[in-house]
Amino acid sequence: MGSAEDGRLQLKVQDLNARYAQAIDDNKLEAWPDFFTEDGRYRVTTAENVERGLPLGMIYASSRAMLRDRVRSLRDANVYEAQRYRHVIGPPLIAHSEGAAVHAQTSFIVARVMHTGETTLFATGRYQDHVVLDGDKALFAEKIVVLDSRLIDTLLAIPL
Amino acid sequence: MGSAEDGRLQLKVQDLNARYAQAIDDNKLEAWPDFFTEDGRYRVTTAENVERGLPLGMIYASSRAMLRDRVRSLRDANVYEAQRYRHVIGPPLIAHSEGAAVHAQTSFIVARVMHTGETTLFATGRYQDHVVLDGDKALFAEKIVVLDSRLIDTLLAIPL
Amino acid sequence: MGSAEDGRLQLKVQDLNARYAQAIDDNKLEAWPDFFTEDGRYRVTTAENVERGLPLGMIYASSRAMLRDRVRSLRDANVYEAQRYRHVIGPPLIAHSEGAAVHAQTSFIVARVMHTGETTLFATGRYQDHVVLDGDKALFAEKIVVLDSRLIDTLLAIPL
Repeated sequence: MGSAEDGRLQLKVQDLNARYAQAIDDNKLEAWPDFFTEDGRYRVTTAENVERGLPLGMIYASSRAMLRDRVRSLRDANVYEAQRYRHVIGPPLIAHSEGAAVHAQTSFIVARVMHTGETTLFATGRYQDHVVLDGDKALFAEKIVVLDSRLIDTLLAIPL
Repeated sequence: MGSAEDGRLQLKVQDLNARYAQAIDDNKLEAWPDFFTEDGRYRVTTAENVERGLPLGMIYASSRAMLRDRVRSLRDANVYEAQRYRHVIGPPLIAHSEGAAVHAQTSFIVARVMHTGETTLFATGRYQDHVVLDGDKALFAEKIVVLDSRLIDTLLAIPL
Repeated sequence: MGSAEDGRLQLKVQDLNARYAQAIDDNKLEAWPDFFTEDGRYRVTTAENVERGLPLGMIYASSRAMLRDRVRSLRDANVYEAQRYRHVIGPPLIAHSEGAAVHAQTSFIVARVMHTGETTLFATGRYQDHVVLDGDKALFAEKIVVLDSRLIDTLLAIPL
């Protein structure tokens, strides 16, 4: 794989994650499932669990339909409205790519802004993404969110 | 617009914002107005105001000359010297482009470092930029800084 | 130097720093020296010292062998295991390039996650890198870490 091709893949994955984060930060949760393939998997786990080889127990969804259900629950529970999030993502690292499938890792940091205006560093970690490309389009076949901190109770409510 | 062209525009906008942030973080405020066109607009507002459709009330400047005045005031007031800022910006999202005009959105996070060394998460938000390209040169025709937090009183003093 | 070449260099430097940060964040310290040339220099200093023209007093290493020694010390002291780091880096700014040598500056922000899960904003600053390219490979001939804060006592233990 040539260098220009590397650059092209990096930009594709970067753009996908940037749009993904923008949808969450802009509170456009209904668009969230559309970043995944029909049977796309979304998981949240911790670095500690990954290192211990523990099964990734916190599976949020294994299809776009399940993500849609999740968004509806969030809207019904009304938990999402009282705060804002701001993701800043780093450049993606392409682990390997094969045809239309790209495996990449991206560092992220998320700030939470409460309704009062108080801003805190909320979560840090890395995305381990399996991205499939179809022409100009890119979708997550799998997105694993690996959190650096083990304190994730309050994270369960929101998409990361 | 082809994919290579997309990539080129992304890099242009990214580079412009990176140099812009560097000038502020390096305390080279006198260079700040030069990132704008002669009649470039610079505004700071909050996400809440944008969503409510409130007029963007906190207009800082509608020309490079006004930005220069602003820098002089900051220098005279000597408020800027006691602290440092560090912007980290994410990848730009090209909303649309037409000829030499590009509309893009970029997430940012700003840390403030006090003279004592104390470091805090100071501001988060997004840039909504209207960039004009002239050959290799890129300038802001408009830069709207949309802050996530409504607590912006203390922000008024510094460029973001 | 053309625009496509600029973009190519930016991606090279960005990718190098992303992999460098990933190695530290993934606790793969043994890989850290391999990002430098055989006689690569690694220094940590503060913005204040740089501005005052003070000699860069905190030289960590002037060769890959010294970095390896440093990693061994960190492992022996066992200080590194109790916490995690998360770097998020911005886009690189290419200051100038000459043949295979590139000088670039990159903003970074580092969060520290304690074993308890507590997450804090740990360090901010910029990398001033002298990168040498050899085909597809990129290495640091010099990496100067310029910290925004003067409070760096506790930083001395870990690679930044």
